[in-house]
Amino acid sequence: MDLNRFQKTLKNVNEFGFTENGMNRLAYTETERNALAYMIELFKQEGMNVRVDEIGNVIARREGVNPSLPVVACGSHIDTVYNGGKYDGTVGVVAGLEVVRYLNDHNIKTEHPIEVIIFACEESARFGIATLGSKGMAGLLNKEVIADLQDKEGITLQEAMQSSGLNIDFIESAKRKKCEFKSFFELHIEQGPVLEEAAVPIGIVTGIAAPTRFHIIINGQAAHSGTTPMNYRRDAFSGATEISLALEQVVQQEMKFGTVATIGECIVTPGAMNVVPEKAEMKIDIRSISNLSKKKVKEELFHMINRVGEERKLEINVIELCDDVPIEMDQQMIQSLKSLCNEFNLSYVEMASGAGHDAMNMAKICPTGMVFVPSENGLSHNKNEFTPAEQIMEGVRLLTYVVLKESHAKHHSILGE
Amino acid sequence: MDLNRFQKTLKNVNEFGFTENGMNRLAYTETERNALAYMIELFKQEGMNVRVDEIGNVIARREGVNPSLPVVACGSHIDTVYNGGKYDGTVGVVAGLEVVRYLNDHNIKTEHPIEVIIFACEESARFGIATLGSKGMAGLLNKEVIADLQDKEGITLQEAMQSSGLNIDFIESAKRKKCEFKSFFELHIEQGPVLEEAAVPIGIVTGIAAPTRFHIIINGQAAHSGTTPMNYRRDAFSGATEISLALEQVVQQEMKFGTVATIGECIVTPGAMNVVPEKAEMKIDIRSISNLSKKKVKEELFHMINRVGEERKLEINVIELCDDVPIEMDQQMIQSLKSLCNEFNLSYVEMASGAGHDAMNMAKICPTGMVFVPSENGLSHNKNEFTPAEQIMEGVRLLTYVVLKESHAKHHSILGE
Repeated sequence: MDLNRFQKTLKNVNEFGFTENGMNRLAYTETERNALAYMIELFKQEGMNVRVDEIGNVIARREGVNPSLPVVACGSHIDTVYNGGKYDGTVGVVAGLEVVRYLNDHNIKTEHPIEVIIFACEESARFGIATLGSKGMAGLLNKEVIADLQDKEGITLQEAMQSSGLNIDFIESAKRKKCEFKSFFELHIEQGPVLEEAAVPIGIVTGIAAPTRFHIIINGQAAHSGTTPMNYRRDAFSGATEISLALEQVVQQEMKFGTVATIGECIVTPGAMNVVPEKAEMKIDIRSISNLSKKKVKEELFHMINRVGEERKLEINVIELCDDVPIEMDQQMIQSLKSLCNEFNLSYVEMASGAGHDAMNMAKICPTGMVFVPSENGLSHNKNEFTPAEQIMEGVRLLTYVVLKESHAKHHSILGE
Repeated sequence: MDLNRFQKTLKNVNEFGFTENGMNRLAYTETERNALAYMIELFKQEGMNVRVDEIGNVIARREGVNPSLPVVACGSHIDTVYNGGKYDGTVGVVAGLEVVRYLNDHNIKTEHPIEVIIFACEESARFGIATLGSKGMAGLLNKEVIADLQDKEGITLQEAMQSSGLNIDFIESAKRKKCEFKSFFELHIEQGPVLEEAAVPIGIVTGIAAPTRFHIIINGQAAHSGTTPMNYRRDAFSGATEISLALEQVVQQEMKFGTVATIGECIVTPGAMNVVPEKAEMKIDIRSISNLSKKKVKEELFHMINRVGEERKLEINVIELCDDVPIEMDQQMIQSLKSLCNEFNLSYVEMASGAGHDAMNMAKICPTGMVFVPSENGLSHNKNEFTPAEQIMEGVRLLTYVVLKESHAKHHSILGE
C-alpha cells in the first residue's frame, strides 16, 4: 500500500468541487460527473473493466481467475453534502482503487473477481433521500416515489439523472442478484469521536443504526408572565424541557447498545419574554443498532409524554416521521476482520455506526463488513473534516487483507509483508 | 353607583381605537388624543377642573371643602397595547369618573379635593417604556434617556409627544410634591386567573412585583446526531432544559411570595433534526413582590447555571437585562380597603400584582392602594379581555367607599346605602 500514491489520488479527486467553504460535489451534478470520469480513467489504467449502471453507480471490475465466481466488492461514494468534507465517502472509493493497485503492483491473481463500486447519490443533501445508488443495487427503490423529488432549485431527481445520461425508467435494472456477490466491504471515516478518543485506528462496525424520528407538538396556554401564578400555568416549553431531560436519562441507560437521542429542533411560540409559552414543537431523532433498545426508548418516551401531558394539562401530539430498522453486520465478516486485525497487529474496537451508509443496503444482498477510521474531533459534513493519511492507510491495509482473503488470492504469503 | 351609566361610558371610550383585532389606542396617537378629549368633556360635565400636565397626564379635580388639603386621587390609563383589550386601564379611569358622578348624584361634599388622573403612556407597547406618565409625576424620568426612544415606525418619543402638543424639555415640571397627595388608589383588572379561580370579586393588592430578566446564552458543540455517543456530547439544548426545569422547581418552592419565573423564549441553533444543538439562547423573566425571594431564586439559578456548565462542558453567558425592586403597598391603605370590604360585605383576597402599574410609581410619593377585579380566563393584552360589568361594579363600590372615607365625605351615612 502506497501512502503517497493514495494521498495524491485523494487530493486530485478533491479538486472537483473544492470551494473555500468546503467540498460541493453534489449528486448528479457536472462536478460529480467530472470527478467520476477522472476515477473511471484511473480504474481503466489499472486494467479494470468499467461500467455505469442504470442509477449511476460506477462499477469497476478486476477479473478473477474464475470469472463465474461471485464478486468480492468494496466501495463507497464521492458525492458530498453542501460545504462538505474531503473524506466522507471519497476515502472508501480511493481505498478500493488502492487495493487494486496493490494487487497489480504485486501481480496477484484472485480466484474471485473484485469490484470497486462508486455508489450514486449517497448523501441526502440534494434530494432528501440517502444511499440511492446502493438502494437501487439492492432493489429497494420505487420509481414512482422518487422521480419527482426536487432539489432546492426545483430540479427533479428524474431531470438530474437525465443530465447525467440516465433514464429513471430503467432504474430497476440496476438491481443485482444475491448470487452475484460473495461479500461487500466499505471503508469509511467514523464521522464521530469514538476512535479518536479511544486512540484506536480501526473501528469494526457491528451494526448500522437506523433513525426513528418524531415531531412532537405541545399545546399549552399563553398567559402573562407576571400575573399567572406557577400553579395556574399550562406552559408548553416547561413540558418540552421535562420530556427532553427524561428522554436523555432513558437513553443514557441504553448506552451499551449505542443508542442515542437528539432534540435538534425546538420552536417556542409566541416566543416573547413576558408570555408563558403557548406552544413548543420539538423534533426528536432516536438511533440505535438494537431494535429492542430503540423500542424501549420509544415506550419510555410515550409514557413520559402521557405523564407530562396529564400532569401539566398540555395537549401533546406525536407525529412519527420515520421508524427504520437497524442493520446488523454479518457475524462472519466481523470475525474475519477481527482475526485479520489480530494477525496483522492492528488495534481495533467493535462499534456501531450511528450514520447510514451504502453498506446497510448491500448487507441486504450479501455478507457485508464495514471498517471505520478516525475523524479528527469527530467532525464530518464540514470543511474541517480530517483524518491523517497514516490513519487512513491502516484502514486501507485491513481492506486489502480482507479482499485478498475473501477473493482467494493466489499468493497468500504476500499478506505477511 | 350606576351600572348602566358605567357600561355606556366604557363602551363610548372604547369606540376610540376599536378594530376587529382588538383595541389599538396607543400612547400619544391621534386616537388616544380623541379618547382623552372625550373623557375631558365628561369630567367637565361633572363640574371638574381639568388640566393636562407636561407629560400628558390628564388631571381632573373636584374641589374639596378645604382646597388646601392634600388630594385624594384615583386613576389609571386609557392607552392600550397593539390589539389590546377594552378593560386594561380604561376600567380604572371610567371608575374614577363614576366615583365623582356618584358624589355629584348625592350632592356629597368632601373635605379633601379629589382628583381623577388618566396617566400617559402606561403601556410599553409603543416605546418600550412603561408607566411613563406616573413615572413623570413621581419625578422618576430622565429626559436624556427617553427622548430618542423610537416606535416601530421610527418616530421618537419626543416627536410623538410633540404631536400631542407636549414639549419633552418640560417633563420635569410634571413632578408633583409628596405633600400634594393624601393618598392614591388604582382600580384595575387582575390580568391573571387568581380571582376567577377563587370566585372572589375583589383582590386587594399587597405589593407589585418587579421583573428581573436575564438573557442566557449556552454554547456547546454541534455534532452528528447519529455518530456522537451521548457521553461525548456538549448539547446546548439539553443544558437549557436542565436549567429551565431546575428554575421551575426552585420557584415552585417560593409560591407563597407570589414569585414566578418564565422562559418565554428559547432559540436553538443550528436547529436541524440531525445535528446536536450548538447553541441555545433563553430569556428568563423572574418576578416577585419579595426581593428576598427573588434574590434566593437568582442565587439558585446562578448555582444551577454553573453546575450545568461544568457538568456538561458548556460555556454559559448570562446577561442581566433588568433587576427592578418590588413595591409594597401601604399597610394602612391595605387595612382600610380590608375593613371597608368587611363592613360592606365584599369578599376579597389579598394578592400580589405580577404586572407593573401606575400605582407602583404613585406609591413612591404617597400612601397607595390598589384594587383588582377578575379577568375572565386570566386574559389580558388580548381582544378577548373581559370582565362582567357586575364584577367591575364591585370594584367601583370599593373605590367609591375608600375615596369617600379618605376625603372625609360630609354625609358619611351614604356609605350605608
